[in-house]
Amino acid sequence: MRKVAVVGVGMTKFSGKQDKTAVELFAEAAVDAINESGLKPANIQALFLGNALGDFAEGQAQLQAFVADYIGAPFIPANRYENACASSSAAFRDAFMWVASGFYDIVLVGGAETAAKMGTPLATRTFAMASDSRYEYPCGITFPGVFALLAHLYARKYNVPLEKLKYQMALVSVNSHYYGARNPKAQFQKEITVDDVLSSFMVCQPLQLYDCCPFSDGGSAVVLACEEKARKLTDKPVYVAGVGQASAGNLMSQKDYLPRLRSRELSAEQAYRMAGLTPKDIDVIELHDCFSIATLIALECLGFFEYGKSGEAVEKGETKVGGKIAVNPSGGLKSKGHPIGATGTAQVYEIVRQLRGECGERQVDGAKIGMTDTLGGDGGTLCNIILKRGW
Amino acid sequence: MRKVAVVGVGMTKFSGKQDKTAVELFAEAAVDAINESGLKPANIQALFLGNALGDFAEGQAQLQAFVADYIGAPFIPANRYENACASSSAAFRDAFMWVASGFYDIVLVGGAETAAKMGTPLATRTFAMASDSRYEYPCGITFPGVFALLAHLYARKYNVPLEKLKYQMALVSVNSHYYGARNPKAQFQKEITVDDVLSSFMVCQPLQLYDCCPFSDGGSAVVLACEEKARKLTDKPVYVAGVGQASAGNLMSQKDYLPRLRSRELSAEQAYRMAGLTPKDIDVIELHDCFSIATLIALECLGFFEYGKSGEAVEKGETKVGGKIAVNPSGGLKSKGHPIGATGTAQVYEIVRQLRGECGERQVDGAKIGMTDTLGGDGGTLCNIILKRGW
Repeated sequence: MRKVAVVGVGMTKFSGKQDKTAVELFAEAAVDAINESGLKPANIQALFLGNALGDFAEGQAQLQAFVADYIGAPFIPANRYENACASSSAAFRDAFMWVASGFYDIVLVGGAETAAKMGTPLATRTFAMASDSRYEYPCGITFPGVFALLAHLYARKYNVPLEKLKYQMALVSVNSHYYGARNPKAQFQKEITVDDVLSSFMVCQPLQLYDCCPFSDGGSAVVLACEEKARKLTDKPVYVAGVGQASAGNLMSQKDYLPRLRSRELSAEQAYRMAGLTPKDIDVIELHDCFSIATLIALECLGFFEYGKSGEAVEKGETKVGGKIAVNPSGGLKSKGHPIGATGTAQVYEIVRQLRGECGERQVDGAKIGMTDTLGGDGGTLCNIILKRGW
Repeated sequence: MRKVAVVGVGMTKFSGKQDKTAVELFAEAAVDAINESGLKPANIQALFLGNALGDFAEGQAQLQAFVADYIGAPFIPANRYENACASSSAAFRDAFMWVASGFYDIVLVGGAETAAKMGTPLATRTFAMASDSRYEYPCGITFPGVFALLAHLYARKYNVPLEKLKYQMALVSVNSHYYGARNPKAQFQKEITVDDVLSSFMVCQPLQLYDCCPFSDGGSAVVLACEEKARKLTDKPVYVAGVGQASAGNLMSQKDYLPRLRSRELSAEQAYRMAGLTPKDIDVIELHDCFSIATLIALECLGFFEYGKSGEAVEKGETKVGGKIAVNPSGGLKSKGHPIGATGTAQVYEIVRQLRGECGERQVDGAKIGMTDTLGGDGGTLCNIILKRGW
């Protein structure tokens, strides 16, 4: 297998409802990524695109074909990946494999979504289709419900009083907004306080409004190249050290593990193994904080803290830039925004810029190794990517 | 790159509306394929699943995760591919690459759809989303319209009188039904005559009902293994000699080529090149006859006949079993049925069984090399797979 490097990244500002289509949003990010790589659209050999709700949001399926044509790379092989929130991370892993295997030298991967355009109530109902259509959402369990259940289970299993857990969860959101306020691409560039979280309206007990990420519009894109090409294209190389992916059935099928997500543990294990690294080696992570409780669960499944202990770590500031592990310096899904299909490669975008030292106020000093973590549905898809600076 | 072989295939009977979900249909096909391979579900290392309309037909997105769990292969990486009608062919190509690259030894690929469940009017409108949402279907061009336009263009460009073309197209459907009547998995196991076609109701001039394939419910699955494993698993090896894929923007962007589909020419060229073969080497092809005119266009783009001449070849019987190139001995989309996401790997199913000599009355004698051709949208995705008997 050949080494594969990121030679260009691009993303739109994430936002609420606006007038661009997913094709246009992805094209904007893609053109930035291609320009940054010093390549031309005609150099792209294949496209891997994550998009979850395009049919529902815009009546556009198979958008990858129109995107390829639209960005000036007509006729290249182009796939659409629908892995719920992890769509573009799944796309990234396949893109990585096609280059690592030696079949392609330069490919484009990314995602786009116009989820905000649908409005939160419709998007919530629509997106609930990523849970089990037999036993989950028909029973009323949309994703806020899923994560509310996990929060209760977490509190009970690890003997964390619910009020304490709610405080820790609130701190997660406060941190996200702190960094988001310093990210010009973030949807919400505004700091919030613990009081703001705890006084926001109740979405699904114990999750309040500010425990929940928004639905967003946005696009993100990454150009991947084989080492030989990458060495000529960039003097700030970031390469893909490891990838992992796993799936899981509905929540009931995961009952022996919850609130741990077995798919995340397996996916992370694969990525660590491929990279020859352990959680201790990771300087910065962009993880899937769709809800504040999701951050606590992720930090434990990924091996950064013991089970039931990540809330205390958050309280001690260990998840801040400068702490034990810098978590979501982009602002995460909560503050940067969550355009479903674009989220995975937007995490890659942040990690790459962190490893290049381009993140200003929210820069993790000397970051050499970063990781992404993307969750689709209630554990249905889990993807992890480990990126490393230098060769 | 390692050699990759098909070690098991399975498919449900294709049908009109019935009560099974896409997850259940795929599971049925998958279990057959896994049993045929002599493996167990726990041996499957990754799942690649084509499904185009699941969200609309059943309110089920991300079904790959539930499928993996359902068939007894929980937690494996599982991707959903949405490449319109070519969804499972795109999935097949990625599955092939993961094994060829040496990353996995045994993977499962397939597709499922419950398109018939939606009813033809709704499915037609819904599936039109695979055309351009800016300039195509909002103008009223659903896919029967797209192929009706291509038929008129074909007649004009190649100076084939429309009545003659309609007769040739009718023969295409007659042939499909002749073979479908001999395929126990086919949706329509009934022969038809040219008169039946020409007296069927007009769908979109010049396409009549029997020029059009149905929307179907069904599932199909293929187990792929690396050569080392495959040699132990089967004494009837069929290996993947070549794969190709290309995309195209909307019809207007393809105007310099039409009625030729450039994406098909590029895709086929890739597959032939990888296999080191030419059209003359192909004994049997399963091609994308979504409409009868599509067969004539495909036969020319794939290099079997000169442009404008495939209708005459059909008249001479050159596309029948025993002719120059055996076309759609399964009955094709027209007679076997077209459960969108399942179609690509169902074509693989037929070719594999042909190469193993298991097709009874519709067997192509001594078939050694077969090919599939799957079209998504109006050229948006084109995939070709070449399969070869023996090692």
